[in-house]
Amino acid sequence: MAAEHSRPTLRDVAHRAGVSIATASRAMADNPAVATTTRARIQALAADLGYRPNAQARALQSSRSNTIGIVVPSLLNPYFATMVTAVQNAAKGAGLATIITNTDENPETMAASLTFLASHGVDGIICVPDEHCAEQLNHLHDQGIPLVLIDRELAGSPIPTVISDPQPGMDAAVSLLVEHHALPIGYLSGPMSTSTGRARLEAFQRACRNHDLEPQLVFRGGFEQEQGFEGATHLLDHGARTLFAGDTMMTIGVLEACHRAGLSIGEDISVIGFDSHPLFTLQPRPLTVIDQQVDSMARQAFTVLHGLLAGTEPIQPTRTDLVTPTILIQGDSLMKGSHP
Amino acid sequence: MAAEHSRPTLRDVAHRAGVSIATASRAMADNPAVATTTRARIQALAADLGYRPNAQARALQSSRSNTIGIVVPSLLNPYFATMVTAVQNAAKGAGLATIITNTDENPETMAASLTFLASHGVDGIICVPDEHCAEQLNHLHDQGIPLVLIDRELAGSPIPTVISDPQPGMDAAVSLLVEHHALPIGYLSGPMSTSTGRARLEAFQRACRNHDLEPQLVFRGGFEQEQGFEGATHLLDHGARTLFAGDTMMTIGVLEACHRAGLSIGEDISVIGFDSHPLFTLQPRPLTVIDQQVDSMARQAFTVLHGLLAGTEPIQPTRTDLVTPTILIQGDSLMKGSHP
Repeated sequence: MAAEHSRPTLRDVAHRAGVSIATASRAMADNPAVATTTRARIQALAADLGYRPNAQARALQSSRSNTIGIVVPSLLNPYFATMVTAVQNAAKGAGLATIITNTDENPETMAASLTFLASHGVDGIICVPDEHCAEQLNHLHDQGIPLVLIDRELAGSPIPTVISDPQPGMDAAVSLLVEHHALPIGYLSGPMSTSTGRARLEAFQRACRNHDLEPQLVFRGGFEQEQGFEGATHLLDHGARTLFAGDTMMTIGVLEACHRAGLSIGEDISVIGFDSHPLFTLQPRPLTVIDQQVDSMARQAFTVLHGLLAGTEPIQPTRTDLVTPTILIQGDSLMKGSHP
Repeated sequence: MAAEHSRPTLRDVAHRAGVSIATASRAMADNPAVATTTRARIQALAADLGYRPNAQARALQSSRSNTIGIVVPSLLNPYFATMVTAVQNAAKGAGLATIITNTDENPETMAASLTFLASHGVDGIICVPDEHCAEQLNHLHDQGIPLVLIDRELAGSPIPTVISDPQPGMDAAVSLLVEHHALPIGYLSGPMSTSTGRARLEAFQRACRNHDLEPQLVFRGGFEQEQGFEGATHLLDHGARTLFAGDTMMTIGVLEACHRAGLSIGEDISVIGFDSHPLFTLQPRPLTVIDQQVDSMARQAFTVLHGLLAGTEPIQPTRTDLVTPTILIQGDSLMKGSHP
């Protein structure tokens, strides 16, 4: 038996058996998702190595709760409320319950949520990650806790990730704005501390270059209605003829700014929104929006998590990203035949 | 020592000590929220009685997680998303984390959620109850798990409950509609299986009687956008000159029906909505709505729960209801000076 200071870990067992940590974990927990013969082989190998799971890990492994956790940065943002509901529906279809935590874009709240979920018996977690929690998330993944990231990505993380690609939607939107001569565009960017904020701004600027446009107006905000309102006011003051919002909450702020300024959308100003929402459709002229197909993203994230839980999907040593293309949904919110 | 068949319960200990079950529970868990001398007295008394807490109760009591649970029937309904966020903010101010479950109006999902929360270490629960889960909720309350109901009530339940009173808002709304000659009113009622659905319909009908009105048009629906759309279409077909929605989701459905029918709200049709939401403000004419002051209700519910957790608030043998009055927020969605 190995000495205490070099006590073998689950990683050693997995390595020696040539299986993923998740599979080794399930085999040690006698989980029937692992074939009987494989379980017996791994358990024998673990005994040879002198592997002893720690109490907490054993408690976690032995108590399948048939419950998953989902961690999102807001529930007032209908994009995340839709995501949560779609994950829950997919989980329900597989016989799993869902519990939810809202981090309110606060990394400390996220850290506490992850600790609670991991230590209070959920079988797996789907998380919109905060970059300040990268280390904790990677550590949970290393411990063999089934984990999938959604919406935002963590550079260099091995955790499977489901994101959307902003480029197709941005290209189609900028192309339409050029056709409508709705320049200059005022783009309301999300925060540079999120992968989505950075990727959408880059995609917008790439789309502008592809159309040989000069750099357009950019307001660097946050994913909040107030920031959308402030940004729209600022961009209108600087002569923007189109307001182009980088997320749902800023789109709501843009609507508020247009209503307050008495601007009729599609007549006095062109607007492009982000994500679909009843608020954007139930306007005198429905908004043209870039849509991320969040339902589809949520279902994909659950499918990956479910594979990890069932042991049919190994936790990859190299991460696989699942990328959904954004699409442009045309409404009636661009000025007709306007010229600069 | 008492024989096994008449094993003393925590209720017996509490009764003998002249304290609430919650206080007895905390004293047995050595919780410092109970004064040292009181703790010692209750523990001695429990030992005399031969009281032994069961393993599960002991595990729950000994592991304060500083986390509360909140159980709501939907997150796509912005009223509940706002409620959850307000509870979470209040809890955060008291150093407590929050986890959320969405029951999707399904009693089985609620039952599973409550079981998960109670057995996985939350310190207390705020719940929008489903009447099919009354027995389970009352049982959790009897076990001494700190529990507060919000939004809907359970007849005869001893659990403290925070609700709104629909009558003041309904009276003000009907009075305004009479002034505007906006009759007949088409009221979109919520489901009769919820206390809110029943209480709002009764309040609407009482307000009509108080104004000596004939019975008005009523559509019995559900708290969903589709039902609001269907109900609005039906009521318009039957000659309603006002559409009056009984919750947020049906208000969204009413907006959808008016937009699709090309009716200009405040010009072709009068609309009264329920609850406040950016969607209702950011219309060409902002909606007049009945508002439940959900933020205030959520804070009240947390204050009661916090009292139970701290042991400063006994779990009452007779329930105390906290009732917030509804208010009418005037927008611009009634037709001007129209006559029947």
